[in-house]
Amino acid sequence: MMASPRTPGALPPPPARTVTRTNVTSIDVARLADVSQSAVSRSFTPGASVAPKTRARVLEAARKLGYRPNAIASTLSTRRSRMIAVVLSNLQNQFYPVVIETLSQRLQKDGYHVLLFVTQTEDADELLVELLRYQVDGIVMASTQLSSSLAQQIADARIPVVMFNRTSNKGRISTVSSDNLGGGRAVAHFLADGGHQRVAYIAGAEDSSTNHDREEGLRAGLAERGLRVVARAVGDYEFERAALATQELFGSLLTSRERPDALFVASDHMAFAAIDTLRGALGLRVPEDVSVVGFDNVPQADWGAYRLTTVQQDAVPMIEATVQMLLQQLEDDAVTRDHVVVPTQLVLRSSARLPK
Amino acid sequence: MMASPRTPGALPPPPARTVTRTNVTSIDVARLADVSQSAVSRSFTPGASVAPKTRARVLEAARKLGYRPNAIASTLSTRRSRMIAVVLSNLQNQFYPVVIETLSQRLQKDGYHVLLFVTQTEDADELLVELLRYQVDGIVMASTQLSSSLAQQIADARIPVVMFNRTSNKGRISTVSSDNLGGGRAVAHFLADGGHQRVAYIAGAEDSSTNHDREEGLRAGLAERGLRVVARAVGDYEFERAALATQELFGSLLTSRERPDALFVASDHMAFAAIDTLRGALGLRVPEDVSVVGFDNVPQADWGAYRLTTVQQDAVPMIEATVQMLLQQLEDDAVTRDHVVVPTQLVLRSSARLPK
Repeated sequence: MMASPRTPGALPPPPARTVTRTNVTSIDVARLADVSQSAVSRSFTPGASVAPKTRARVLEAARKLGYRPNAIASTLSTRRSRMIAVVLSNLQNQFYPVVIETLSQRLQKDGYHVLLFVTQTEDADELLVELLRYQVDGIVMASTQLSSSLAQQIADARIPVVMFNRTSNKGRISTVSSDNLGGGRAVAHFLADGGHQRVAYIAGAEDSSTNHDREEGLRAGLAERGLRVVARAVGDYEFERAALATQELFGSLLTSRERPDALFVASDHMAFAAIDTLRGALGLRVPEDVSVVGFDNVPQADWGAYRLTTVQQDAVPMIEATVQMLLQQLEDDAVTRDHVVVPTQLVLRSSARLPK
Repeated sequence: MMASPRTPGALPPPPARTVTRTNVTSIDVARLADVSQSAVSRSFTPGASVAPKTRARVLEAARKLGYRPNAIASTLSTRRSRMIAVVLSNLQNQFYPVVIETLSQRLQKDGYHVLLFVTQTEDADELLVELLRYQVDGIVMASTQLSSSLAQQIADARIPVVMFNRTSNKGRISTVSSDNLGGGRAVAHFLADGGHQRVAYIAGAEDSSTNHDREEGLRAGLAERGLRVVARAVGDYEFERAALATQELFGSLLTSRERPDALFVASDHMAFAAIDTLRGALGLRVPEDVSVVGFDNVPQADWGAYRLTTVQQDAVPMIEATVQMLLQQLEDDAVTRDHVVVPTQLVLRSSARLPK
């Protein structure tokens, strides 16, 4: 299926090519484009002022000569790579593609790009070595699965680091999260006010701060209304696991009075699996038989087949805070510790019965 | 909401910090860790052989001294940045998060990382400058919206480049795509064999090769069965536009015999919007009133609320081909032109009536 990478009989590339690439200077480009050397330099400096026509001429000359601006030399002098590493476990939860897209575009405005590290590894040393090798200017740790001791090691290496969507290790590493506790509590009040008596919970990863805080908020809010969590299963923030957790919670109680009448799921990603399982395998109606509430407000929560009532984590202010912290740390050449909690908000759709 | 980045009254960082960071060498680290200098070097070289215990000691010493391996100097000597740029427009179509995750993990195996360029820009010059500045070793153009002349400029700059999920500009730039033509034809045959008589089409971006080939395949396949496309609207690969396109195709024909009985949608992302609109605003049943078929087989196509019959674009072999092409070009220090077409396959679920 894969065609041959070079046509048989084609000539090998001339050795002169590499030499050309190495030796062309901005002076050669300036001469060919008939502009000043400074104009060449400005053409290759983001944000620098240069007439579009001039830049077009410079680029055309650079192309003809095979010139590449010496970005690495300029990195050496400024000690800036203009890269921010983003470490995450996977992109299956639809919140993370939104984060990556928003963060990339936001950083590009300030002349930075995102270098991706997708890892399920437990080998923090390996990852640390990689992060150091690329000399990134800062790191966003958006993986819920990596230990916060890794973040600590990075901070010890004096690289600006922000833990995104996590709150553990507070006081030692900068963190940005949404108000998971407040979000969980708001769900509890909403469900109680809607007359629900038997609230069940599907947990995310047990060791994550997001799961911890969302569940704590739910329990606190229910207690304030004289209720409690009647059943609980672990979905581990995974789709398939959440489907199994739903079976576990409802399967044996289908005709029982013990059956939960409301389900709070620690992420939208898992809530879609829960709704599919309730409606499909279990033959229950949402919200007539069971109200379902998620967390994140990913784009799919608004899709017609789910119309998921959920807690909004607002990616834009979370990312703005993250970027501000990184840039501030870079500017000060210091690792500061800061904790930003972005407010959450309940978004009402039709997967849960409303209070009368 | 944003806390102050530094506690008032806190001391500024000591100036010695910067000096330390700059002057620590691998010799200092070797001395403190009581290992050879070569062991330090190997500890920071991906794939190099070093005992885990030795590496742990090296990392601990490096941490204490604030040492950073001189990756930039090593880039200068090898002329490799170990970065592959991925250029894309957005991550809303769920095919792209899958591609990014799979590509990142695949490249990491070979010691490369993905540098992201998320851009809706028409300013190809601006993007080219950025790509040159970072001295990436190769580029994957996965944006359907950027002109192929940009890819040509990149190839002219002698940077390995692959156009991913595009086939335009064949013969000048390497491309990897799935068999869009064959996929479209398979859908046509499947719908015809299922007894559908009135097939409508929702197009993606009109200027994209994916849309062109999928539609051409559909038309050819229908013609082979004595049928034709009875109606067509443009969804531009966007969710909201696809909802409007569905209204346009069905809204005025709800009770008419002219109403289409099947709908082929050029991407799953748009097909979800089409199904929501058919079931919601238009009150039609899927597949009893209208069969719907998508293209991509994103993870959401398998979700219970949609169970979308669709054409699978297999990201894994597409990415394997892309990586092989880039590495081959890097090894040869030559820009070869290659075209890989990965077979597609119809995945049957329940959004379309099956042939008897």
